[in-house]
Amino acid sequence: MGLESFIDVSPDSHFPLENLPYGVFRPKTICRESSPEVAAPRPGVAIGDYVLDLSVIASAGLFDGPLLKDSRCFNQPSLNLFLELGRPAWKEARATIQKLLSVDDSTLQEDASLRKKSLLPMNDVEMLLPVEVGDYTDFFCSMYHTKNCGTIFRGPVNPIPQNWFHLPVAYHGRASSIVVSGTNIIRPRGQGHPTGSSPPYFGPTKKLDFELEMAAIVGPGNELGKSIDIEEAYDHIFGLVLLNDWSARDIQAWESIPLGPFLGKSFSTTISPWIVTLEALEPFACDAPKQDPHPLPYLSEKRRINYDIPLEVLVKPAGEELASVVTKSNFKLLYWTITQQLAHHTINGCNLRPGDVLGTGTISGPDKESLGCLLELTWNAQNQLDLNGTARSFLEDGDEVIFTGCCQGEDYKVGFGTCTGKVLPAISIDK
Amino acid sequence: MGLESFIDVSPDSHFPLENLPYGVFRPKTICRESSPEVAAPRPGVAIGDYVLDLSVIASAGLFDGPLLKDSRCFNQPSLNLFLELGRPAWKEARATIQKLLSVDDSTLQEDASLRKKSLLPMNDVEMLLPVEVGDYTDFFCSMYHTKNCGTIFRGPVNPIPQNWFHLPVAYHGRASSIVVSGTNIIRPRGQGHPTGSSPPYFGPTKKLDFELEMAAIVGPGNELGKSIDIEEAYDHIFGLVLLNDWSARDIQAWESIPLGPFLGKSFSTTISPWIVTLEALEPFACDAPKQDPHPLPYLSEKRRINYDIPLEVLVKPAGEELASVVTKSNFKLLYWTITQQLAHHTINGCNLRPGDVLGTGTISGPDKESLGCLLELTWNAQNQLDLNGTARSFLEDGDEVIFTGCCQGEDYKVGFGTCTGKVLPAISIDK
Ligand SMILES: [Ca+2]
Ligand SMILES: [Ca+2]
Ligand SMILES: [Mg+2]
Ligand SMILES: [Mg+2]
Ligand code: NI
Repeated sequence: MGLESFIDVSPDSHFPLENLPYGVFRPKTICRESSPEVAAPRPGVAIGDYVLDLSVIASAGLFDGPLLKDSRCFNQPSLNLFLELGRPAWKEARATIQKLLSVDDSTLQEDASLRKKSLLPMNDVEMLLPVEVGDYTDFFCSMYHTKNCGTIFRGPVNPIPQNWFHLPVAYHGRASSIVVSGTNIIRPRGQGHPTGSSPPYFGPTKKLDFELEMAAIVGPGNELGKSIDIEEAYDHIFGLVLLNDWSARDIQAWESIPLGPFLGKSFSTTISPWIVTLEALEPFACDAPKQDPHPLPYLSEKRRINYDIPLEVLVKPAGEELASVVTKSNFKLLYWTITQQLAHHTINGCNLRPGDVLGTGTISGPDKESLGCLLELTWNAQNQLDLNGTARSFLEDGDEVIFTGCCQGEDYKVGFGTCTGKVLPAISIDK
Repeated sequence: MGLESFIDVSPDSHFPLENLPYGVFRPKTICRESSPEVAAPRPGVAIGDYVLDLSVIASAGLFDGPLLKDSRCFNQPSLNLFLELGRPAWKEARATIQKLLSVDDSTLQEDASLRKKSLLPMNDVEMLLPVEVGDYTDFFCSMYHTKNCGTIFRGPVNPIPQNWFHLPVAYHGRASSIVVSGTNIIRPRGQGHPTGSSPPYFGPTKKLDFELEMAAIVGPGNELGKSIDIEEAYDHIFGLVLLNDWSARDIQAWESIPLGPFLGKSFSTTISPWIVTLEALEPFACDAPKQDPHPLPYLSEKRRINYDIPLEVLVKPAGEELASVVTKSNFKLLYWTITQQLAHHTINGCNLRPGDVLGTGTISGPDKESLGCLLELTWNAQNQLDLNGTARSFLEDGDEVIFTGCCQGEDYKVGFGTCTGKVLPAISIDK
């Protein structure tokens, strides 16, 4: 039987006492005639259908462990300061919160005034970005995705580049345009490949896609010039989120010779608001795929861990009521682990900072039903998907994309909630 | 004749009253036995061999124009808030500072106490990064550099990719590892291409290079989803700095298929501490190269402006006393202007923020003596450079690289100072 909270948590909830994911929220503005106040962002933890306001808990002096009792880390508009403290502080916070919310503890349970101040119905809060993102890196760690992209763009001969089995390939992404789940996605404009001798296409992208990814959120990080040893990489990862690396395939294909993706990606990247900690994911740890060839020593780890996190993508077509499942994949399919990604990222001395986002790359599986983006699912629009009677090759205006991910325990779940975004039409231009 | 300051400015100085570049500094710590204080970073302006402390000027109430009189923008550890205010505030600040430092004004000149507090010898300050960099983008705007790189890596047939003449190609860079001039550069470790069937090379890079670039520092920027019209792009650029995009060519070549440069660049990027404003550069504006084919409307501007900024790279080999000039180039050679770069960057709705850095890409000229990196100068180590008797193909430990750039007016200069870095040996590893 799972842990029991004094708060009623449905067995289907993503957020039981075993999970306790961290986010940043603000109470929704109560409209008053005279003073429309906007509440300050503050850290919170999800429990069932409630959010526990950690700034209130901290101000009440309930973080009384040695590492957190004098910390201001929960009186901040982001989790960055908490992330910087590292795993011992994270464990202390988790123990404190799990005890406070437990049915066996009276501190919060029997203090009606504190309960009212600190526990807010999820519907009454607005979720914000959980971290200030200094840098965002996107990896390319699914072998199936790599093989499919290679085949589509460069043909079936050696679709996986030679370097891919030796290092986790990655590129720098755009930090400024990372947005939280629920933010609308404006269809980007840009250039596409010219036909014949005419100038390049210019206009709204005709190939708007999602990419099913997850991302590691970096903890303490490292100084410039120092590398993080792979056996210590785990302690630099706070937790995971869902990530949608929205992609404009026509813009991307035309611009990215020879320096890689740029405007085809930088218009928006969506992450889920709740960071699920590695502590909460521990029961779902599993062996990562065997690697052949064996990686270089700096990428070799004693135990290669992935997590068994079933993932789903649903698309709700414009004007329709129902969302259709378009793919089912799993985080455990990744060839390069998040600890390998992090060790590789710092091997040249590059400094990671608290709150940095390391995207896994599109997580595709081996089957037709487990491909992580429309490019693969429709084979670059050669086929169409049937969404409950509506046909799609790429995304159309008004379509909504919904990611979800959830680990199944014996009698409880550890879930990520959803990561959603609705496509809005491109803005018009005069010139 | 140039403008005259009451401060003695040598005719060779990069920083006369016509320049007034902005930076962030802190007074050097005076060692005291009891309390080693570290002074707070604050904005300053260079004048001759002095730095004017803008936090002192602001606190004295001397920024009395309508836009700045109540602003806290000079009581900050970075210039970001000032950059956000936009060109009208920048012009007001420039007029105020130019007047205060002028021989014709008595306010500062005749206030010995304020002079002493606000004017610090450059030798007594430590220069810091002038901005907090949210995102760093590196463009690829020199046709000569593009052609040479293409020839070296892909052969002499069509060395310039087809897209290059239609858009300013770029990639996202790493913001965290941007450092200020004078910071030592630790030789990065990483993987290089394997030979035959052996595993990839791993160790310190054997092909450490510099890249002679400049960078535009972004002002107000734009909201996510909105583009900046090219005719308004100028007002979003505060000024320019020198930028050294240190590159490990072996790491870069092996890792960058298919997503572009990553660890071959992210170990360090150096910028000069002084941002020279577009106002100061105005007398050196010149026509940018004609473009054929004509760019798409969103990249077409009424007047295409570059600036005539002669640039030089010197290398001081390890153990030697003298630095040798290895290249002479010029900012005015760039095919894509900084306003085109900025308009392109936002055409997909990507948001720019104050303090963002837009690197131009390596600025190579048409001649052997004007190539902007060692890759080109030594044709990927096929040749060697003779540095006053010392031979170099790529950089060796202990080498120091010095960039400088300076516009020549009738009887004054508007210069950038230097952008320097010394190469330190790679850190060793146990595994
Ligand atoms: Ca991706
Ligand atoms: Ca570059
Ligand atoms: Mg993206
Ligand atoms: Mg760099
Ligand atoms: Ni960044």
